[in-house]
Amino acid sequence: MKITLKDGSVKEYDGAKTIYEIALDISEGLARAACAGEVDGEVVDLRTVVDKDCSLSILTDRDPAGLNALRHTASHVMAEAVKRLFPDAKVTIGPAIEDGFYYDFDHEPFSREDLDRIEEEMKKIVKEGHELKRFTLPRDEAVKFMKERNEPFKVELIEELPEGEEISFYDQGGFVDLCAGPHLMNTKGVKAFKLLSSSMAYWRGDEKKARLQRIYGTAYAKKDELKEHLKRLEEARMRDHNKLGREMKLFTTVDVVGQGLPLILPRGQKIIQKLQRWIEDLEDREWGYVRTRTPFMAKSDLYKLSHHWDHYLEGMFVLGDPEDKDCMALRPMTCPFQFFCYKNEQRSYRDLPYRMGETSTLFRNEDSGEMHGLTRVRQFTISEGHNVIRPDQTEEELTNCLNLATYVFTTLGLQDDVTYRLSKWDPNNTEKYLGDEEYWNTSQDALRRALQAKGLAFVEADGEAAFYGPKIDIQAKNVYGKEDTMVTIQLDCENADNFDMYYIDENGEKKRPYIIHRTSLGCYERTLAWLIEHYAGKFPTWLCPEQVRVLPISDKFTAYAEKVCKTMFDRGIDATTDLRSEKIGFKIREARLDRIPYMLIVGEKEEADGTVSVRSRFAGDEGVKPLQAFIDQIEEEIRTKTIREETVEEEKN
Amino acid sequence: MKITLKDGSVKEYDGAKTIYEIALDISEGLARAACAGEVDGEVVDLRTVVDKDCSLSILTDRDPAGLNALRHTASHVMAEAVKRLFPDAKVTIGPAIEDGFYYDFDHEPFSREDLDRIEEEMKKIVKEGHELKRFTLPRDEAVKFMKERNEPFKVELIEELPEGEEISFYDQGGFVDLCAGPHLMNTKGVKAFKLLSSSMAYWRGDEKKARLQRIYGTAYAKKDELKEHLKRLEEARMRDHNKLGREMKLFTTVDVVGQGLPLILPRGQKIIQKLQRWIEDLEDREWGYVRTRTPFMAKSDLYKLSHHWDHYLEGMFVLGDPEDKDCMALRPMTCPFQFFCYKNEQRSYRDLPYRMGETSTLFRNEDSGEMHGLTRVRQFTISEGHNVIRPDQTEEELTNCLNLATYVFTTLGLQDDVTYRLSKWDPNNTEKYLGDEEYWNTSQDALRRALQAKGLAFVEADGEAAFYGPKIDIQAKNVYGKEDTMVTIQLDCENADNFDMYYIDENGEKKRPYIIHRTSLGCYERTLAWLIEHYAGKFPTWLCPEQVRVLPISDKFTAYAEKVCKTMFDRGIDATTDLRSEKIGFKIREARLDRIPYMLIVGEKEEADGTVSVRSRFAGDEGVKPLQAFIDQIEEEIRTKTIREETVEEEKN
Repeated sequence: MKITLKDGSVKEYDGAKTIYEIALDISEGLARAACAGEVDGEVVDLRTVVDKDCSLSILTDRDPAGLNALRHTASHVMAEAVKRLFPDAKVTIGPAIEDGFYYDFDHEPFSREDLDRIEEEMKKIVKEGHELKRFTLPRDEAVKFMKERNEPFKVELIEELPEGEEISFYDQGGFVDLCAGPHLMNTKGVKAFKLLSSSMAYWRGDEKKARLQRIYGTAYAKKDELKEHLKRLEEARMRDHNKLGREMKLFTTVDVVGQGLPLILPRGQKIIQKLQRWIEDLEDREWGYVRTRTPFMAKSDLYKLSHHWDHYLEGMFVLGDPEDKDCMALRPMTCPFQFFCYKNEQRSYRDLPYRMGETSTLFRNEDSGEMHGLTRVRQFTISEGHNVIRPDQTEEELTNCLNLATYVFTTLGLQDDVTYRLSKWDPNNTEKYLGDEEYWNTSQDALRRALQAKGLAFVEADGEAAFYGPKIDIQAKNVYGKEDTMVTIQLDCENADNFDMYYIDENGEKKRPYIIHRTSLGCYERTLAWLIEHYAGKFPTWLCPEQVRVLPISDKFTAYAEKVCKTMFDRGIDATTDLRSEKIGFKIREARLDRIPYMLIVGEKEEADGTVSVRSRFAGDEGVKPLQAFIDQIEEEIRTKTIREETVEEEKN
Repeated sequence: MKITLKDGSVKEYDGAKTIYEIALDISEGLARAACAGEVDGEVVDLRTVVDKDCSLSILTDRDPAGLNALRHTASHVMAEAVKRLFPDAKVTIGPAIEDGFYYDFDHEPFSREDLDRIEEEMKKIVKEGHELKRFTLPRDEAVKFMKERNEPFKVELIEELPEGEEISFYDQGGFVDLCAGPHLMNTKGVKAFKLLSSSMAYWRGDEKKARLQRIYGTAYAKKDELKEHLKRLEEARMRDHNKLGREMKLFTTVDVVGQGLPLILPRGQKIIQKLQRWIEDLEDREWGYVRTRTPFMAKSDLYKLSHHWDHYLEGMFVLGDPEDKDCMALRPMTCPFQFFCYKNEQRSYRDLPYRMGETSTLFRNEDSGEMHGLTRVRQFTISEGHNVIRPDQTEEELTNCLNLATYVFTTLGLQDDVTYRLSKWDPNNTEKYLGDEEYWNTSQDALRRALQAKGLAFVEADGEAAFYGPKIDIQAKNVYGKEDTMVTIQLDCENADNFDMYYIDENGEKKRPYIIHRTSLGCYERTLAWLIEHYAGKFPTWLCPEQVRVLPISDKFTAYAEKVCKTMFDRGIDATTDLRSEKIGFKIREARLDRIPYMLIVGEKEEADGTVSVRSRFAGDEGVKPLQAFIDQIEEEIRTKTIREETVEEEKN
């Protein structure tokens, strides 16, 4: 048989060989590094026997699928270690995931000390260097095998496999796990690993089923790669808005209030207020929007009209019995409310595009497992808007919406974080959607053209559309790499008909408009989370809840410090004083820890001259300046929303 | 017997006399004008027999109680007219009320035409000049009497009176009504009356009982007083925010959204946005507030802690089953949410008063019959706040809160519309409240002292307090004279304990603070209604959704008009253009009807000179000015929130 390798070279063998044997034949080094194989494009175990012509890649930890095999083996090593230390634990499943692996056990919660002990035991198992041996059993025997070992979750898994199927196991020196593979040849290939955390998880993700304990870990082939990853993780953790945002007193949560319902504290609200006023004025004074304020609840009649009652009820908060005709519900979106604002008077073709903006609070009944910090919440406020347009205005207005969103991200310094996605209907599940194939093709084309016209790179995704139309999603990842939608721009050619919206055309006839559902900044809560993580809490000056802190070098200069502060505060600058009887060095360190952009240090000379000694987060010592000169400088920085770079290394405290 | 009259003079009579006879003895004119009597301070019927020494006033339509008797007689005349025209109608009750009277009938709805016919019939009855004769019956006979007449509502009323009571009736030429009086002597005393409207009302105000038709009317002794009243009513109707606010496109309502859930349209939202930003900046930059943003819903656990679950559940919107432990509810107030913001970090005595403001949306499950326009709604937004104070700061901080509210009303030009009320607990129904008598006396005293210290006139009202503390209510009346609470300032010495809130005092010990629950502007929706009615839609310039309209005298000056408009718009002035090819006179008339403060008329001369011809709602023609001079003028007017007086009579269109 002829084996074509990745580099195009061909190996010929007389008889069948395992992939591992072929790797060994190529070079001992390759065999040592081999994690899995790829035969004619399919990832397979190294123990797989090749017996006919094919193309073959030997996958190492450099290949994602190879690294996955290594991590999957690490999860088996962890399971063995757990069973050694906690024989009562029942094993369930343990896959490789992005950046690592996990395994779920039926057991009491594990402490950090437990994880440390498990890690030590894993090191032993790796050192013992067990070979992983694959074997198969018919289903009945497989069930019997796991019953004897008293592993009910494995029994349940096997019983669900089709009858007559050969079921594969891996045995590593006595610890045997049900597994489809692929795996490394020997546990000693798991060279660098770390257990990260433990948390509760439901068996099969179903909250009605057993509560399990999931242990997360990561593994690499090289120690320095692990170290690099752990450093990145630590950096991410430091930026994690759900940690940093609380430390910075931007928000908090309270058990008796409930999950997914953060309380935005004064410092957080300062930022949101600045964002909100900026967006409202930007939209209304520069992009032609008018602003509405519509109710947060309505009778079910409204949602029946908008089809949310049929398509989205499980995501809504219902007040009272859904069967009751007077039943009300909190809104998951603003669309039909703004549609009725449009319908409040007759509009002519000259009035279009009619762009309605609203700083709109929405409510979504998220599952308790889904909620996270400020990014996945049950109540949020969005820079919502619906632009009613003539069909001939579609592309121009889609482009306007894209331009506005891009302008917003660029102003916030977030432009490099985003990717674009064209979210389409699911052509294999069309009954979830309103409208026919032609409607979807036409509207998806319009969005595609708008993206292309702007020269934006984008991916296309089936099944991600709204039920009434396709959308452009602007995506960003959080510090852990989880992607969220920050902005959507949707084209909707269905609802004008549904809500009997029209405009009077040039000939005095009623015509149906199209509607663009869009946001500019997205959700304020989610954007705040994004900003916290992007800037690690060191926001651009204009957004800072505390922009300047005035530090008198001793109590003698309290009055001057207060005067300096008040002068700025009265001009709208968020200035404070630190009048405590502490050493100036201590106050500076605290202000730096609080990420204050500007510290103004004042003493005898400054008071006498009407000056301030400026120390910034960006450039360190900026010298002594007349107060008015500093005010002019920071007002300009705030007005232009400048994002100053930090040109000094942070001094060690 | 000796009868002391109002003027101090004394009449002596040998035997008993009716009050009417005494009036007749004084003068025929007085007897003609007499509506009721007042014997030793008690209002009584003219037919009442006086048989011992007493002081006596003869009441005419100049006396409120006299006018009431006249109106009460008018309601009997109306009831007789209805029975004559609609013999199937069942009578129920028909009292005099402020400004008129009503009578409720069990009948189909009445049309305006029906009311006109009833009015004509009433005129006949008045002209016929029936004497009203009072007689009494024992209860059993009274029941029998009304059963024979087939008046089940009257039967029900009589059956509820104590057994053995003498029950009084008035007979006016055959039409007999159960009534305690007092009444005029003859139907011809009802000289000037008008039926105003008809609407549905429940028997005894209970929506589970029969639906009745209420006819409202008014009556006076003199025709010109009626005319005067009807003119005032018409003026009120023209100012009624529920009519004018819709006409001016400030808000609307939609059936499928539901009652009490107005949609604020772009023009209305402009005003609310201006108010909101003003109040937020006023509180935060001048009155020492920090701002929170807390969720609109919480688990029942929170409301149980705040006692709202026990004391206010029927007013709340509950999400799901109230018995369910994870049940949530929309908030009717912000208190406990802000309490947890306070508790987010340890506070010292130096940090107090800690003043938390929030532009807070609240939800109250008002009965469907209660809702009205923007003043009684199910969702509203309030300039909410909770000031956590040391007990020694109570009076100073109450005064601060009063001063802020007064400043807000004065700035809005509403200062003469308000009255003050000290709302106390109900000493006869103490189980509705938290805290003991001493607590209530002490806290009520503190509020009273704060009102007195400011030299404000105020009334005291039992049973109007919040369940956790007394309050100062600032009241205003709508165009129809109905009073609403616009602002409340509440003292609360209970909840800090309840929520375990404390501060660290000078000696490092934990102490309980007091809390002031307060608002500055009140509800934005209700204040908007108030402003509409107070100004009849002619808002001060700074609040106007459209402050300037630029009117080119012909199409040739479109470009200049647009340039003028954009120059102002870019500076934050709400300027628009009217570029239609209409006559300038027509455009001016429309702008005036739209209550635009400033019209800028531009033509050849203005374009050549860079000027504008200014015409204002206040002073009419203000002459030609350089554009920049006009901008300086209006910016100053907006910045200072000047309320310009109108010194020109509105020209007739």
